[in-house]
Amino acid sequence: MPSPLPPHVQMLIEELRKLPGVGEKTATRYTLYLLKKAVALQSLSTCLQDVANKIRPCSLCGFIAEDDICVICGDQTRDSSMVCVVEDIQDCLAIERVGEYRGLYHILGGVISPLRGITPEKLNIESLFSRVKKGDIKEIIVATSANAEGETTALYLKRVLSDLGVRITRPVIGIPMGSSIEYLDGITLMRALHGRREL
Amino acid sequence: MPSPLPPHVQMLIEELRKLPGVGEKTATRYTLYLLKKAVALQSLSTCLQDVANKIRPCSLCGFIAEDDICVICGDQTRDSSMVCVVEDIQDCLAIERVGEYRGLYHILGGVISPLRGITPEKLNIESLFSRVKKGDIKEIIVATSANAEGETTALYLKRVLSDLGVRITRPVIGIPMGSSIEYLDGITLMRALHGRREL
Repeated sequence: MPSPLPPHVQMLIEELRKLPGVGEKTATRYTLYLLKKAVALQSLSTCLQDVANKIRPCSLCGFIAEDDICVICGDQTRDSSMVCVVEDIQDCLAIERVGEYRGLYHILGGVISPLRGITPEKLNIESLFSRVKKGDIKEIIVATSANAEGETTALYLKRVLSDLGVRITRPVIGIPMGSSIEYLDGITLMRALHGRREL
Repeated sequence: MPSPLPPHVQMLIEELRKLPGVGEKTATRYTLYLLKKAVALQSLSTCLQDVANKIRPCSLCGFIAEDDICVICGDQTRDSSMVCVVEDIQDCLAIERVGEYRGLYHILGGVISPLRGITPEKLNIESLFSRVKKGDIKEIIVATSANAEGETTALYLKRVLSDLGVRITRPVIGIPMGSSIEYLDGITLMRALHGRREL
């Protein structure tokens, strides 16, 4: 049975299906909602156009920016001697949501993964070098994921950055708040015990 | 903590939050995806613009159309003596998905609901009259929901259309396929027993 929907509506459903986690049913629901609310449809289209025209990566850290540098890099009250290296924009947003960290960031845009063909050259590492070479940065916190690829990337960064006289740290592995020992995986448990501290 | 995201990105997140069932987390995930895929962002914006410019309700039945009348009303192979009255476009799509029904539709755009201030005048009923008065229609299937508001709407339509010499029917209430008697609600069970047929 061919769909009774006009081609342009079907194309909109196809476009919405590309969004992460959206299947045909959800895409159709979104489309029918937008068809009913002409205002929402119009303003969503305008917003997308504005973002397409005005948003670019921050020339310093790779975060989302409307000017040459992003809000975080441009904030004079932040500690520019400390840079937290993260895989992606989501990670930066997660740390910002806590509201504790007052240093700057550097977005790699992924992790080193030979299997997926992601070599160090494909990541935003070159610009991290340039930032470190300017001499203001004293510490680099490598906050990549606590898995094989994240660890590999962290070790790679340590190797290539260690000559530049900057301290390179990594968040500690341990028991997450609220979890019971019983259900914790072995590696986390072992690392938490090794890293034990005086009460 | 104010968001470190630029205003235009925040506006896009706000727009996406208006979609049904989408919260801030999902809207942010969609936005970050679109920021990464410039092509997807651009084509979604174009699709929305096309839909805004080219799509309108079918002048006959109220379904989504690109021309004056929709694909269904324009299909000469369909049975124009039969009209299925549904609450919304979704209902029409659900019936079309089965691929059995070969008549036409009429989209009410809701149900009569005095509590929510929806009177018959606010629904697409006037144009149903005009269609019936033309004389081609022999049967109207009132496929509104099987709940209080849907029943009220069906009874209203029966009352106002019965003088026009058209047969007015309603889908039968019964046990849905695959369900066990044990867990069925009382009203459905009673109606299914009353409507029993010879094996």
